[in-house]
Amino acid sequence: MVNASLLIIGDEILSGRTQDKNLGYLAKWLNEAGIQLAEVRVVPDIEQEIIDAVNALRAKHDYVFTTGGIGPTHDDITSESIAKAFARKHMIHPEAFRRLEVHYAEGDFTKARQRMAHTPEGAELVDNPVSIAPGFQVENVFVLAGVPKIMQAMLEQLRPRLKGGKTILSETLAIHAPESEMAEVLQNIEAAHDGLSVGSYPFFRDGAVGTEIVVRSADACRIKSAMSDLKVFCQQQSYSCSIV
Amino acid sequence: MVNASLLIIGDEILSGRTQDKNLGYLAKWLNEAGIQLAEVRVVPDIEQEIIDAVNALRAKHDYVFTTGGIGPTHDDITSESIAKAFARKHMIHPEAFRRLEVHYAEGDFTKARQRMAHTPEGAELVDNPVSIAPGFQVENVFVLAGVPKIMQAMLEQLRPRLKGGKTILSETLAIHAPESEMAEVLQNIEAAHDGLSVGSYPFFRDGAVGTEIVVRSADACRIKSAMSDLKVFCQQQSYSCSIV
Repeated sequence: MVNASLLIIGDEILSGRTQDKNLGYLAKWLNEAGIQLAEVRVVPDIEQEIIDAVNALRAKHDYVFTTGGIGPTHDDITSESIAKAFARKHMIHPEAFRRLEVHYAEGDFTKARQRMAHTPEGAELVDNPVSIAPGFQVENVFVLAGVPKIMQAMLEQLRPRLKGGKTILSETLAIHAPESEMAEVLQNIEAAHDGLSVGSYPFFRDGAVGTEIVVRSADACRIKSAMSDLKVFCQQQSYSCSIV
Repeated sequence: MVNASLLIIGDEILSGRTQDKNLGYLAKWLNEAGIQLAEVRVVPDIEQEIIDAVNALRAKHDYVFTTGGIGPTHDDITSESIAKAFARKHMIHPEAFRRLEVHYAEGDFTKARQRMAHTPEGAELVDNPVSIAPGFQVENVFVLAGVPKIMQAMLEQLRPRLKGGKTILSETLAIHAPESEMAEVLQNIEAAHDGLSVGSYPFFRDGAVGTEIVVRSADACRIKSAMSDLKVFCQQQSYSCSIV
């Protein structure tokens, strides 16, 4: 299984000022590409924290995605920090510089904006169709913008650069019974199917308690078999259930 | 400064099925208690991952909060994993057992539900007024439910157990000019005020570009001074601005 991690960089997430929207999006996007999001970390705008996290994650996972901290202001330190994590020089990327120079009116390509033309030496750019300033790739680390629309546009181009595994399929069954009534059967179903995971998520709807069972596997046959076991269980217990 | 970290436990967050709502809530709640959320990790329902993360975080921060994985089903392995992280026995907590036994009708306190009465040896309970099954504390680690309403109710009782620092204050100024026009002045203002952080967040509203500047410090006087510097800057540049 190909796996990945996400490093969210930014004080604004840790202070609660900004609600992160990139985790959920990336998780689903990777799922479709057959890649499993295996870990997420959120760190503040502190160089050593970024360096330590990116080095831990890139050693552990096939891919690392970072979001945030690549703008023009003093708290945007992702690019320098990634350069240090890889022990590479942090320098002007000629193509990034060219794009930004073309984009800004004469005199507007200020020193602050020129910071956005810097990458670790040898980085490969990731285009930014929304606001020009590019992201970049160094080895297995993809450095993306934090603004969700820009992050999503950047991600779209990366598909050809990633080797995916099989797409993870899932089916969900809503059972109108409390989670604790089915703990044992869920464990048995998971144990009986290699490479299948069974998650259970309680809900309260229209005054009644229920549980959504999510069955996930790369193998459609195993999902079918597990769902069939679940329906037999519901029949035996006279629980009503429905596919979500 | 007293700091804390959050460990979010659950495949459902990493698969994108569930959007986490606890990070933002905890961040703001801690802010009010004068505690800074300094790091967040999200890990899957895998014992070794939970053990490694909780041990890394509890060594690094004053407090660790965990959310998720304390229900009755086979994928709820937080409690056992925390016990292993602390090298403590995982055993029935008599008071937790008593509460759950009282709560359930005779015959309904099944083996699966009895799992929720187990904690690491010597753990102190955290009450759950919503659905009885308690969270718990071991040393500087607080193990809470993943369901936001329950997590929030649990958190409310913890205030007396936490030593807080000063409340972090913040003010926000919306400036109607692009972020990259003010990079240098923001850096200078931050540098000129000890213990003050300046964040900048671009926005697009009514077709115009602007930047929200968030000034944070435990010291009201420093915030006032920084806001005054910002307003002088806006005047000099003829940018309109407003307090948010």
